[in-house]
Amino acid sequence: MNIFVVNSGSSSIKYQLFRWPARQPLCSGLVERIGYPNATITHKVFAAEAPRETRRTLALPDHEAGLREVVALLTDAEQGVLRDPGEVEVVGHRVVHGGETFAATTEINAEVKAEIRRLFALAPLHNPANLLGIEVAERIFPQARQVAVFDTAFHQTLPEPAFRYALPERLYTEDRVRVYGFHGTSHQYVARQAAAYLGRPEARLITLHLGNGCSAAAVHAGRCLDTSMGFGPLSGLVMGTRTGDLDPSVVLHLMGQLGYSTEQISNLVNKESGMLGLTGLSDMRDITKALEQGDARARLAYDLYAYRIRKYIGAYAAVLGGLDAVVFTAGVGENDALVRQKACQGLAFLGLELDEAENQQRRPGLREISRAGSRVKVLVVPTNEELEIAGQCAELLAT
Amino acid sequence: MNIFVVNSGSSSIKYQLFRWPARQPLCSGLVERIGYPNATITHKVFAAEAPRETRRTLALPDHEAGLREVVALLTDAEQGVLRDPGEVEVVGHRVVHGGETFAATTEINAEVKAEIRRLFALAPLHNPANLLGIEVAERIFPQARQVAVFDTAFHQTLPEPAFRYALPERLYTEDRVRVYGFHGTSHQYVARQAAAYLGRPEARLITLHLGNGCSAAAVHAGRCLDTSMGFGPLSGLVMGTRTGDLDPSVVLHLMGQLGYSTEQISNLVNKESGMLGLTGLSDMRDITKALEQGDARARLAYDLYAYRIRKYIGAYAAVLGGLDAVVFTAGVGENDALVRQKACQGLAFLGLELDEAENQQRRPGLREISRAGSRVKVLVVPTNEELEIAGQCAELLAT
Repeated sequence: MNIFVVNSGSSSIKYQLFRWPARQPLCSGLVERIGYPNATITHKVFAAEAPRETRRTLALPDHEAGLREVVALLTDAEQGVLRDPGEVEVVGHRVVHGGETFAATTEINAEVKAEIRRLFALAPLHNPANLLGIEVAERIFPQARQVAVFDTAFHQTLPEPAFRYALPERLYTEDRVRVYGFHGTSHQYVARQAAAYLGRPEARLITLHLGNGCSAAAVHAGRCLDTSMGFGPLSGLVMGTRTGDLDPSVVLHLMGQLGYSTEQISNLVNKESGMLGLTGLSDMRDITKALEQGDARARLAYDLYAYRIRKYIGAYAAVLGGLDAVVFTAGVGENDALVRQKACQGLAFLGLELDEAENQQRRPGLREISRAGSRVKVLVVPTNEELEIAGQCAELLAT
Repeated sequence: MNIFVVNSGSSSIKYQLFRWPARQPLCSGLVERIGYPNATITHKVFAAEAPRETRRTLALPDHEAGLREVVALLTDAEQGVLRDPGEVEVVGHRVVHGGETFAATTEINAEVKAEIRRLFALAPLHNPANLLGIEVAERIFPQARQVAVFDTAFHQTLPEPAFRYALPERLYTEDRVRVYGFHGTSHQYVARQAAAYLGRPEARLITLHLGNGCSAAAVHAGRCLDTSMGFGPLSGLVMGTRTGDLDPSVVLHLMGQLGYSTEQISNLVNKESGMLGLTGLSDMRDITKALEQGDARARLAYDLYAYRIRKYIGAYAAVLGGLDAVVFTAGVGENDALVRQKACQGLAFLGLELDEAENQQRRPGLREISRAGSRVKVLVVPTNEELEIAGQCAELLAT
């Protein structure tokens, strides 16, 4: 079975093709700048020897044109991995917001699409692009079964005290204001990998997805009990350009006293803050370099980033009533030893002891970076959202 | 020495008179509805037998008229505690916002008043009323030394990763946006009482001030390391009518999608939320009653209130690198056994074990409600902000 995984953004399509049940990635790629005359496609074929990458610049008026170009690459006479687009049997779509309707991966029909549309108000930037991707894929792969995998679904197990805000009840019942949480596919994937590695399906885990966006999740026996992103993908940990937790009275002050507009605030807290706002730099590797050169801003940014993680580890240990492992994942979590070191400082009282030497190593795959005697394990688990999406599609259609 | 403690609000004056160094309260009272024709003064004299209370309703055009009536009561021929207002040697003023300027209690002069005025932008509701109280007291007690005790001062020891937001740097350097924290006088008072009781000046404490407003503080060796209120008195724990922590994207959604104005949001999150918003009830005792009658809203509100406290206990244990005691104080913290019970649930992994029977008791004064073997002590410490203000005045003027 061939499963094609699609993550459709407002001007981009990220994709990966898997052969199942071998879980074998055949190719992956990224279409960027859709709608511009100089759109690009970067397409990578996983050949037996080494991956072969193709790069094209061309005019792509819309998502449909973009996906047709991808199909041309998939079925290319020379380097194609399929003979015919009809060989794609399943298309798995990443959909950001599933609201309270979708607590699990769901096969797409007219009703599901209508519901994804109804959720536009909650995810105005993402759900429209995700729905567009679904509609285009339905036209291009009419024979395939289309499946939606929601970023919010894993967090639908949150108990009410964790998902409700202390706002008047009508804001929840009528306006659907609550904690939804995001990065669910990644948290679910690494939590499952970690529990399998520990040989403890009932493990109490804190998963830390640290990429451009960052979030923490408290997971007990595979169920998510709390997560740091809330109504939108803004609260919680410090991110590349987002504030994470911020007293809402700051927003009211900026508007009421300093004359900011809603749009200016939205840009400020989503695009100009986080590590970028603190240092003026947007790439974590540049910030590390600045730190090594003794830059005070970079030091503060790192300390704040790690401090916030440490507080969430403590808070979620309390939520879980104890802790078996902390899991680092995604770009920063997998690669930045200094973040991991600073985040784990002073947690010996929880029984968490980092193995400093092991933490500094760069190794592929899942690995343990806590000391041999550490009661709480610290793991680095590479995330793979595309593989998780493909796996959830296969599981759904097998039942 | 007679120390007169004043807490001046926009239409109220709360006061207490102490004889020092005996720390003896002579009388206390509250002037309400200043500016209305039916203002009231409730005045209580602490007599040897039982306190004697006087209540008056009268027209009070302004704060000066209000304070002159108080002086009349203080020096009343029959029930007065002073012969002459000139016997007041120190007036200690509670001032809400000291910004970064005031890290300690300070004797008031023209420069200090100018600075309190400069901070109006950060505390538009409180500092103007506090300054008015100072100016009126200067006229009525011209012989006395005037001292300002700031609600924010105790939190000025926060390290930078704890007091900074992940916002662009200019918002801190130019617009003074940072964590200030509030309730400092209360946190400082109960932290000192708890450390003295434990006989450990270096104790690592979490102090929980649970009144109408609620905040948590992490205190190590008498220094505050973190606190849950931030730029304004809004973030952190769930309060009587305030949300506590709230994803700022909720604010942006309410404004951008649902058409709320800044003022409507400010009212919503400050006055219509918290326990009131969740239950429709504003008094914690009524909510307890509803809970006992099986009301689902009351149950959720209690669970959310306690859940948020529990997360802060975990987070601050991580900040402190371990924990010696949790301290409950203020109206709810001192009196609501159910809140304490729910907040301490599942914290055995920290070495915290509540003594359920002792927790249910009602006893005056500082008391321990953890089990005999509990590594982390749980204390109930009645707060006394007026006494702390008087004490800080006396200490300042003695040096």
